[in-house]
Amino acid sequence: MEGAPDLAAVQARLKRFRDERDWAQFHSPGNLAKAVSVEAAELLELFLWVSPGDEDEVTASRREEVEAELADVLIQCLNFANATGVDVLAAVNRKIDDNEERYPVEKAKGSARKYTDL
Amino acid sequence: MEGAPDLAAVQARLKRFRDERDWAQFHSPGNLAKAVSVEAAELLELFLWVSPGDEDEVTASRREEVEAELADVLIQCLNFANATGVDVLAAVNRKIDDNEERYPVEKAKGSARKYTDL
Amino acid sequence: MEGAPDLAAVQARLKRFRDERDWAQFHSPGNLAKAVSVEAAELLELFLWVSPGDEDEVTASRREEVEAELADVLIQCLNFANATGVDVLAAVNRKIDDNEERYPVEKAKGSARKYTDL
Amino acid sequence: MEGAPDLAAVQARLKRFRDERDWAQFHSPGNLAKAVSVEAAELLELFLWVSPGDEDEVTASRREEVEAELADVLIQCLNFANATGVDVLAAVNRKIDDNEERYPVEKAKGSARKYTDL
Repeated sequence: MEGAPDLAAVQARLKRFRDERDWAQFHSPGNLAKAVSVEAAELLELFLWVSPGDEDEVTASRREEVEAELADVLIQCLNFANATGVDVLAAVNRKIDDNEERYPVEKAKGSARKYTDL
Repeated sequence: MEGAPDLAAVQARLKRFRDERDWAQFHSPGNLAKAVSVEAAELLELFLWVSPGDEDEVTASRREEVEAELADVLIQCLNFANATGVDVLAAVNRKIDDNEERYPVEKAKGSARKYTDL
Repeated sequence: MEGAPDLAAVQARLKRFRDERDWAQFHSPGNLAKAVSVEAAELLELFLWVSPGDEDEVTASRREEVEAELADVLIQCLNFANATGVDVLAAVNRKIDDNEERYPVEKAKGSARKYTDL
Repeated sequence: MEGAPDLAAVQARLKRFRDERDWAQFHSPGNLAKAVSVEAAELLELFLWVSPGDEDEVTASRREEVEAELADVLIQCLNFANATGVDVLAAVNRKIDDNEERYPVEKAKGSARKYTDL
């Protein structure tokens, strides 16, 4: 592989990692959904009790942890995609299509309201 | 862009989506970490009260929801990366490097134990 | 206080703990909701990668951790109630009333389906 | 029952609710830990994209939802306690004992730092 790694290469690497350890048996959709939630909370924990004005400082001073926790969430998402055959980029693009309809620029601009309240 | 979309194109699309709506003001690291957790729980909810033997059936019969909830987690992770400048694929690859050290094949094979207990 | 502690005594103790440390400033509803989620995930983590048949064994062998993590979730819930003035037992009883309507015995018996699917 | 309901009465009511519906079969520790996390995220969702200055307004204007979501977290915690035999108030009191040691008033006063950083 030359140049920057792409997402497909990373997913292939995760599949290899899993299979070398005979871990497909643990990678059920329900287990991986649990893992995604657990890792998401570890990312959130880095910002617990941090006031909004200090978040950038935390992001800088604890950079390695922030990157590692974000990576853990992504890894479990990609494990989930590998286990269920979801095409990640296609699913994300479809969801952005939906969001473009739910949040038309003229209504959503500058507003944090949920689409059901727009 | 020709062929399949790549991750960089999706991240650029999310940045455009955010900026057209003037939403960067809401995309602080702490808010996005909250969003990742909330979306992760919505993915988990699809498998709540589902017995392990029925998970594949749920993944098939509720396919659209499964894909949409996984996409929502990924979108908030990518928004977080856009807001903080984390290089997603590099971070994931570094974490897989770490996991290869923590979980050597000969010790981890077929075991669900945490690396601290191996 | 004689006999077993009651919930009101525990809530009073948490209020005292908070005020002695001048922590009311951190106990905003949003921060406490984050804390509830983070603690909930730590409870969940104890059962991550544990097969259903081994859960009782984990509950027994890691008893202290299980109790401590459950306690942490409850403490943040009670901190939230203290901060917002929610009457915990009244709120729980009202929600059980609702659930009795949503899940009538004759329809819900032995079924794990959500009330919207009954 | 006269006067205010106590926690033991609420736990007994939840046990009855569960058994009338033959739901003990679904109330494994792992399933209930999942349910606690899912409900915690629904509480968190009420404060997603809400700026700190608007949290009290949300707590007031969406009072019923706030109470219902907090109640849902507590109900799943109490279901967990019922399923595993944890004495909720004793566990909470033990954890507050620990926290008193971890966060001595003179060190923790006015600080949001984790005890490992004090």
